[in-house]
Amino acid sequence: MFELGVVKRNISRADRAAADGMARYGASTVHEAQGRVGLLKTYMRPIYPGARISGTAVTVLMHPGDNWMLHVVAEQIQPGDIVVAALTSENTDGFFGDLLATSFKARGARGLIIDGGCRDVKDLAEMGFPVWSRAISSKGTIKATIGSVNIPVVCAGAYVTPGDVIVADDDGVVVVPAANARATLEAAAKREALEGEKRAKLASGVLGLDMYNMREPLAKAGLRYID
Amino acid sequence: MFELGVVKRNISRADRAAADGMARYGASTVHEAQGRVGLLKTYMRPIYPGARISGTAVTVLMHPGDNWMLHVVAEQIQPGDIVVAALTSENTDGFFGDLLATSFKARGARGLIIDGGCRDVKDLAEMGFPVWSRAISSKGTIKATIGSVNIPVVCAGAYVTPGDVIVADDDGVVVVPAANARATLEAAAKREALEGEKRAKLASGVLGLDMYNMREPLAKAGLRYID
Amino acid sequence: MFELGVVKRNISRADRAAADGMARYGASTVHEAQGRVGLLKTYMRPIYPGARISGTAVTVLMHPGDNWMLHVVAEQIQPGDIVVAALTSENTDGFFGDLLATSFKARGARGLIIDGGCRDVKDLAEMGFPVWSRAISSKGTIKATIGSVNIPVVCAGAYVTPGDVIVADDDGVVVVPAANARATLEAAAKREALEGEKRAKLASGVLGLDMYNMREPLAKAGLRYID
Amino acid sequence: MFELGVVKRNISRADRAAADGMARYGASTVHEAQGRVGLLKTYMRPIYPGARISGTAVTVLMHPGDNWMLHVVAEQIQPGDIVVAALTSENTDGFFGDLLATSFKARGARGLIIDGGCRDVKDLAEMGFPVWSRAISSKGTIKATIGSVNIPVVCAGAYVTPGDVIVADDDGVVVVPAANARATLEAAAKREALEGEKRAKLASGVLGLDMYNMREPLAKAGLRYID
Amino acid sequence: MFELGVVKRNISRADRAAADGMARYGASTVHEAQGRVGLLKTYMRPIYPGARISGTAVTVLMHPGDNWMLHVVAEQIQPGDIVVAALTSENTDGFFGDLLATSFKARGARGLIIDGGCRDVKDLAEMGFPVWSRAISSKGTIKATIGSVNIPVVCAGAYVTPGDVIVADDDGVVVVPAANARATLEAAAKREALEGEKRAKLASGVLGLDMYNMREPLAKAGLRYID
Amino acid sequence: MFELGVVKRNISRADRAAADGMARYGASTVHEAQGRVGLLKTYMRPIYPGARISGTAVTVLMHPGDNWMLHVVAEQIQPGDIVVAALTSENTDGFFGDLLATSFKARGARGLIIDGGCRDVKDLAEMGFPVWSRAISSKGTIKATIGSVNIPVVCAGAYVTPGDVIVADDDGVVVVPAANARATLEAAAKREALEGEKRAKLASGVLGLDMYNMREPLAKAGLRYID
Repeated sequence: MFELGVVKRNISRADRAAADGMARYGASTVHEAQGRVGLLKTYMRPIYPGARISGTAVTVLMHPGDNWMLHVVAEQIQPGDIVVAALTSENTDGFFGDLLATSFKARGARGLIIDGGCRDVKDLAEMGFPVWSRAISSKGTIKATIGSVNIPVVCAGAYVTPGDVIVADDDGVVVVPAANARATLEAAAKREALEGEKRAKLASGVLGLDMYNMREPLAKAGLRYID
Repeated sequence: MFELGVVKRNISRADRAAADGMARYGASTVHEAQGRVGLLKTYMRPIYPGARISGTAVTVLMHPGDNWMLHVVAEQIQPGDIVVAALTSENTDGFFGDLLATSFKARGARGLIIDGGCRDVKDLAEMGFPVWSRAISSKGTIKATIGSVNIPVVCAGAYVTPGDVIVADDDGVVVVPAANARATLEAAAKREALEGEKRAKLASGVLGLDMYNMREPLAKAGLRYID
Repeated sequence: MFELGVVKRNISRADRAAADGMARYGASTVHEAQGRVGLLKTYMRPIYPGARISGTAVTVLMHPGDNWMLHVVAEQIQPGDIVVAALTSENTDGFFGDLLATSFKARGARGLIIDGGCRDVKDLAEMGFPVWSRAISSKGTIKATIGSVNIPVVCAGAYVTPGDVIVADDDGVVVVPAANARATLEAAAKREALEGEKRAKLASGVLGLDMYNMREPLAKAGLRYID
Repeated sequence: MFELGVVKRNISRADRAAADGMARYGASTVHEAQGRVGLLKTYMRPIYPGARISGTAVTVLMHPGDNWMLHVVAEQIQPGDIVVAALTSENTDGFFGDLLATSFKARGARGLIIDGGCRDVKDLAEMGFPVWSRAISSKGTIKATIGSVNIPVVCAGAYVTPGDVIVADDDGVVVVPAANARATLEAAAKREALEGEKRAKLASGVLGLDMYNMREPLAKAGLRYID
Repeated sequence: MFELGVVKRNISRADRAAADGMARYGASTVHEAQGRVGLLKTYMRPIYPGARISGTAVTVLMHPGDNWMLHVVAEQIQPGDIVVAALTSENTDGFFGDLLATSFKARGARGLIIDGGCRDVKDLAEMGFPVWSRAISSKGTIKATIGSVNIPVVCAGAYVTPGDVIVADDDGVVVVPAANARATLEAAAKREALEGEKRAKLASGVLGLDMYNMREPLAKAGLRYID
Repeated sequence: MFELGVVKRNISRADRAAADGMARYGASTVHEAQGRVGLLKTYMRPIYPGARISGTAVTVLMHPGDNWMLHVVAEQIQPGDIVVAALTSENTDGFFGDLLATSFKARGARGLIIDGGCRDVKDLAEMGFPVWSRAISSKGTIKATIGSVNIPVVCAGAYVTPGDVIVADDDGVVVVPAANARATLEAAAKREALEGEKRAKLASGVLGLDMYNMREPLAKAGLRYID
């Protein structure tokens, strides 16, 4: 595990329908649906607002300032994949720009999650290739040291196994283990179904205090009202 | 002060006209008008650009990862209020999303200032409920520990007493003590009145050096011109 | 060098055509073209998206919380200049707002690069005066201490000599020494000319692995493919 | 409140015995004893390890890069006081060194809490004058702008009123409102008395799970043991 | 994986001799020996200098501000273990102090690695129980929400499986997967054996340029010497 | 300038006596003596307390995660030099450890200033080779890409030309341009001579307010005393 210098060609991807279906619910609902785990650090931000994607992870581990492996991972992309790029130490260089995006898009990638920097952000917005990154940086990288492709990685504090589901939108990036994909999708659907009714009640002025029956537990916990 | 487990129902709100009137001038002018104090830390950023609000503060103090008190504060909101949420220690979880926003809006709140994380930011932008937060995060919170409502709090480095005026826009968030509200509004109006004339002069090419008579004090301070 | 209290009036600006021409290529291409040096720290962000400028640097060194020298530098601006503002220690106060922007614009400045805070960001967006800054802050500054104008400065980690070329866009801010301006412009033009062809190939599905002949060096470096 | 340009000469200090007595228990026990509020941000660190002090706060509010008010506050120090220095915006300059420490010590101050930088740290360690600061910096400051002395301040995220009790040690800095001083001291003493017995039990191998009767509530909360 | 509410009682610990033996070589040598992977983020610092430990990991996952599970993990500690504590979101509260340390020590733990805050640091130093943490904080925590014990966790950016080897000293914290423990120990021993000879040569004035035969590859890479 | 791939062999070092003499006064006094410029960012901290050195700078520019050039710079060290290492982008890897320290020491280096990480810190403390760094990290680096030696660099925000004087101690790191070395040494000596008398006065209870005649200017600035 975490071996350097390895490219795994055959990975087991999560159920396609489950992976595709999660974009509808978004990162926050999916995160909640799988029990509040799997969120990448909040410093991971979209390079432009409004994108919402889900798909299967192909992973890559790189060294600071060296994007050689992004060319290697490109070959392993299948339509519906999202590339998840981790680094061996913190670095904000611009590993990814419009040329690689053109290649990734041609291979069928839906986006990139990178715990490093991104550049050509205006071009990427125009071509509609979304990236969530820790930084935006003009600084190019070298191609000198090998890393790995499709090994488990820790990306922005989250453990990602190749084939896991990634959900990303303006709220952040969430990883769902492949084995949980279907169950999580169902749980997300249920959550959203329930939210419509709640939203209507709250909009009419009903308080959460009453809708969720919180007054008694709050009093038990010792909450006092004073004037 | 800073007592946990207390909800204060009756607070003395700042003069309504003064509280409402400050949005016109915005955070920077109001901050200047009250003598350059009262600014929240600059890490507090709007979740979407372009909003500008002012109103009266209702406050809430919560624990990291626990948003129970947001339901408690909802009941204390009156039209024209802005909720100011402080935490007992630094935390970026997503305490607030579209359901709570629906409730706050129904109660008449104009926005939320939270020294923690916010989620559902796309939905919040679409419904026009502005939030200034330290982070955006999909991570939901629990409802296990009580805090307080309408006690004085320190939010993002600023001391806020319930009923104080809050002014927030793309430049940041400023708090004006209720007792100073009218005087500060007048001072802000005066500042802005003066700025029109200055702006015209500067636009015509007059230098601040001459408009503000700075050349002599600069020379006194020792400034030397060389070629 | 780094002397305080000095205003240099005559500086040698980079070749005008070279300085003006770099905006076309943008920060990332120019950075690459001059050998991957000269990038300001990535915390320098545009206050609004979409601007892309290049021009010649006039520099100013200020103290934390004191913007007096911005009025002094205004007089030294010539059409086509970009003001580069450095601080003697880290500070995020709002040194610059719409009044100074009006003055800078009237003098012919194309934008401001400031290793401190900026305010009135909505107004600046509306008037189309781009700023790259380390923070956005309502906090105004005083006018009490002199700094220097048109001395070499370190701004956001980059060394800038008056007259150097500045290129700034959504990817960040790059400085090009005046002596390298023409050569760097040519190198940038060449890079871009080559990119069109590459982009077309990659869009057609050709892999960078093949286009750049990477397979052999990767194997030599020890990369192993497994199933 | 937070007015600039004011020195309050007469402040009401917390009960002397209570203020002095808290050093015995230290920051963590006192923090716990007053209900887990009043901790300054954890970036406040001692400049040398091992000091533990308590005393009454005299406060000062300064501008970034300007330590003029430290000379003003010196005159207001009484034996047993601890100076609490807040800034109007974030700044790490070295506001305080061995000369001011000599003066503060001569006036009877027990230490300094400063939300800015400190210098001459080796000298301060040798003379035994403890400082808790956000940074260590050689950078000196100017004396150009007035602030205030003995007004309520927000220092490193905590609200401090002149006369409050400050407790500081290797664990951090805690503020206790003057009105709570005696009660908090008693609560701290009780906590410590109970800890001796607990410590002995735990040292003998008894588990907290059993000593605190946690097994049942954990099971109720849903904790499952698997092999 | 990453399931909440689970305590795994039986874990497979790494080879005892290998786990114990690594302390001799320290974090840097072990990190190098296993191919430069497995380092926790560099913000993890020892609470006192000079400690060097290795042992087998028992893991715990907690919520921000809630240390309930530290009592649960205590029961799972075996002599030679090191507790590795991860959080579901970033938090610096003081989860661990001298009482828990007394308990952990009585169970045979060698230290604690915690991606949160620690308190009572002076007491811990005196009792010789080393902790590597992201912060030092007086702020106590609650016991309200369950997490998990002995599941795989991501701690400070590194993936840790229960039973893995942990090596920690003044240079930082490294995790070695249990399966690699013996091989890594051997590699570490070899590295150190080679270093003695190198050290002697370098001490005598031989340059690394010559000892490692770097002159030719440097010239090939294009390095030019000028006068 | 800032050219990559160049080693400059002959540099003009600052006056030896001036370079050597500054250690006596330390970073803070020297910084003040040259007009409060030349301080490296305050994140640069000594790996162990108590060292105080001054000497002449030899510089090196490296890429993130690549320490090849440290072997190149070793050859350029002369007795009395201090190595100043800058990076092309932010990185905390452990570029430097006890083997390189052995080599640097054998060449006569007095210490290292590195805007990256350092390891083997316990060994370095024992051998008495002081390092000021931005981080401590076990992570080793590769030797793949060339940088430059003895070109001007920006290290931790300060511009350093080969041959400049470096002064470093517990307060931080200061650079003095070679041309100013003698004058700065004299100014530092004068400052210290004056401080003895001031210290004695302050120790006797005289206030800075009186010793520096501040009462009148404070009153002029508007300071009001209230009861």
